[in-house]
Amino acid sequence: MTNTVIATAKPAPNNASARTEAEAIADFALGLDLGSVPPAVAELAKEHLLDALGIALASSTWDFGRIVLNGVRELGEGTKATAIGSGAKLPPASAALVNGVLAHGLDFDDTHIGAIYHASAHALAACLAAGEASRATGREVLTAFIAAIEVGCRIAMVGAGEFHERGFHPTAVCGAFACTAGAGRLMGATREQMVWALGLGGSQAAGILEQNGSWLKRFGPGWAAHSALSALALGRAGFLGPVTVLEGSRGFYATHLGKVPGGAALPSFELGSAWFTSSIALKPYPCCHYIHAFADAALELRDRFSLDDVDRIECLLKLSLHKSVAEPRDWRIRPRSAYEALFSVPFVVATALQKGRVDLAAFHDEPLNDPALMALTAKTFVLDDPHSDYPLHFPGEVIVYLRDGNTLRCRKPASYGSPDRPMARDAVVAKFMGNATRAIEPAAAEHVAKAVLALDTAPSLDELIGLCIAPA
Amino acid sequence: MTNTVIATAKPAPNNASARTEAEAIADFALGLDLGSVPPAVAELAKEHLLDALGIALASSTWDFGRIVLNGVRELGEGTKATAIGSGAKLPPASAALVNGVLAHGLDFDDTHIGAIYHASAHALAACLAAGEASRATGREVLTAFIAAIEVGCRIAMVGAGEFHERGFHPTAVCGAFACTAGAGRLMGATREQMVWALGLGGSQAAGILEQNGSWLKRFGPGWAAHSALSALALGRAGFLGPVTVLEGSRGFYATHLGKVPGGAALPSFELGSAWFTSSIALKPYPCCHYIHAFADAALELRDRFSLDDVDRIECLLKLSLHKSVAEPRDWRIRPRSAYEALFSVPFVVATALQKGRVDLAAFHDEPLNDPALMALTAKTFVLDDPHSDYPLHFPGEVIVYLRDGNTLRCRKPASYGSPDRPMARDAVVAKFMGNATRAIEPAAAEHVAKAVLALDTAPSLDELIGLCIAPA
Repeated sequence: MTNTVIATAKPAPNNASARTEAEAIADFALGLDLGSVPPAVAELAKEHLLDALGIALASSTWDFGRIVLNGVRELGEGTKATAIGSGAKLPPASAALVNGVLAHGLDFDDTHIGAIYHASAHALAACLAAGEASRATGREVLTAFIAAIEVGCRIAMVGAGEFHERGFHPTAVCGAFACTAGAGRLMGATREQMVWALGLGGSQAAGILEQNGSWLKRFGPGWAAHSALSALALGRAGFLGPVTVLEGSRGFYATHLGKVPGGAALPSFELGSAWFTSSIALKPYPCCHYIHAFADAALELRDRFSLDDVDRIECLLKLSLHKSVAEPRDWRIRPRSAYEALFSVPFVVATALQKGRVDLAAFHDEPLNDPALMALTAKTFVLDDPHSDYPLHFPGEVIVYLRDGNTLRCRKPASYGSPDRPMARDAVVAKFMGNATRAIEPAAAEHVAKAVLALDTAPSLDELIGLCIAPA
Repeated sequence: MTNTVIATAKPAPNNASARTEAEAIADFALGLDLGSVPPAVAELAKEHLLDALGIALASSTWDFGRIVLNGVRELGEGTKATAIGSGAKLPPASAALVNGVLAHGLDFDDTHIGAIYHASAHALAACLAAGEASRATGREVLTAFIAAIEVGCRIAMVGAGEFHERGFHPTAVCGAFACTAGAGRLMGATREQMVWALGLGGSQAAGILEQNGSWLKRFGPGWAAHSALSALALGRAGFLGPVTVLEGSRGFYATHLGKVPGGAALPSFELGSAWFTSSIALKPYPCCHYIHAFADAALELRDRFSLDDVDRIECLLKLSLHKSVAEPRDWRIRPRSAYEALFSVPFVVATALQKGRVDLAAFHDEPLNDPALMALTAKTFVLDDPHSDYPLHFPGEVIVYLRDGNTLRCRKPASYGSPDRPMARDAVVAKFMGNATRAIEPAAAEHVAKAVLALDTAPSLDELIGLCIAPA
């Protein structure tokens, strides 16, 4: 089951009941020792870090990657952190912004399914920038990355599904808190300072789903990482944030969900003894996670019939998600850009059926308006899935009606890459190589993979960062 | 009436119906000519700018002013903009953060009463930073400042009272949009680029009312100004934001208010022909605007009785505002810090009655726990005001019950400094002098006042900025 978490012995409560959520998060983030993290969780965390890094490398060759870098140069000069791919030297808060945009920009990064929260993109961005600036060891950076992921998934889980219903993007609105937890540890924040910085996140928690052909979704994780580094700069200088930022009567949950959680619904519940890192899904396909099970199903069905014989294709998806990946139908079946194509069930299903693959090339390198492909998208309709257990899983069902009256059907209760059907390490590395080699040489990419998978032994990030710079 | 606005001839519709709100705002901000602004509005705008600048100067001598400056130095180096008071050279986005915190940090800055929106603090911060960086004329900066104020008040007005009910601070959540409109003009953004930057504001719109002894409220306007400069840097580089950021089905109003306005409720309604700048209230007292009419009433009543004869004091305030300035009673009657005292009806009323003044000294220089003062706060109770027309006005009624059975009562339908009872220019300048001379010499402060009141004739901001640097 997706949300099964690896559990370890509970830490001593340590007067936990008297702590606010921000205090409990700071205690966890500052006190976490990699030795107390289940080895399987630490190994998974390296894979997620590697995955996000590969996507960032690929993104650095895209227009939005160059543009965000050009933009942040105006925010200030600095040399303590590095933009992935370009190798540009920047202040940590600016590098965090760039790298967060890069890691999420292709919508190829991981998702905590239950929380519908992209966990790694901004965590990577914040922890790399803070780790480089503070000259932390690889072990410290990995520990901080795990802290950021654990905190972020838990904060987002409180509003699973509800954030989306209200139009908020959980990754963006919860991201600054997560990044503050991870990066604060690396920047040497005291408990008090980290709590203040988390508190300032109350006026940084932002991110809406209005997209309309723009890159707003790409911006969110980068801005969250930038916000966290900024809040930490102020908090470490002594600027006071509210200790009750999350659970206060006018705190984050009251404002953004209209409710304040308690008990087992609190982010701090079993923090440090149950591990959300083990329930984050990796993406084998570079498109919205809601569509992955449909890609799985279409790929499985494609050898069983000829495309010439297709009369109609139906995809069953929970109705509330149609506005994200199915409606309005006019441009979902004829995406006006690669980025729009990533959010179209008909486009992805048609691509899988026609090409037998759903990869970066299909979206970004090949024509989006190929007539045969468009003929297929026009036959593909998205209907309600009354049996969906979203957001616990993101199921998908594809039904192909053939001209001869026969019907083929495939339902995937969860997508490949999710904890129920995980990608093996080899597949994660293969995905990384495909992404990274869009920016750097294969030999360098292989070195990066090795370096990340041995991150806990690296004396600093220097070697890794150096390898992530594309040849001029 | 507070929300009477000065009206001028409507501009030609220019296919207005086909524009999004962000497009209409960009057209207004980029097209505004000071010659088309009613002279009374332009003169008021100079007074509001002067007022905010004086508060920023004062704040630069406070702990939070030094701390925010220390913090932002980590965000990057630069020399294009200046922190008020210290004269520190910073990148524009960092200077905007510092100056926005300074201008709002004493809660002495203006408020659009109907929208419950502090209009000038972040507008000043963003426009000074952008104006200095772009070497704009004083006329250009004043025009941009008016654009920022007009846009901000209108965006906030859509959720008048409702933002607060949901726990959002309208100044903070609407501020990035306002600052983008003003600063974008100065930074040379094209219409398209400004619209993109406004769109990115959709993932920057943040600010909650959870305060709990912290400085989160101080942070909001600074972060909004910083957000705007950042969004403009990206937008000008070509990073796409959604054109429907405000009115989209998952846009700012849908997420933050749960409703999407239309028609006359839209921010763009009569934009450029009706002027909100003329309905912004200045603060004669350095405390929350909700309390000003109570200060007025207490000051008027104080000569009519002896404090020794007071049995009980009742203050009538709309019940929904009690959580902001009356509850919980324990610390409202015994504020633990000057900043908390600014948000206490009992403290302000007792101060007015005891000292005959409500000024910075009463909050920040003199003891908060003076026994005679505490005896008065303990006798002061805040009850509901069933006749309040909040948020149209912020009325206040004080009732003093004397031991001899007599009762004194004073109700102020609107506070001194609001458009119904405006502060004369002399009073605005006197307030400025009191604030500014906490940081700079009286002669320099006099020069600043003259320079601001003649801002439309200044070739650049150089002289003004130079005058706003405190002696070492």
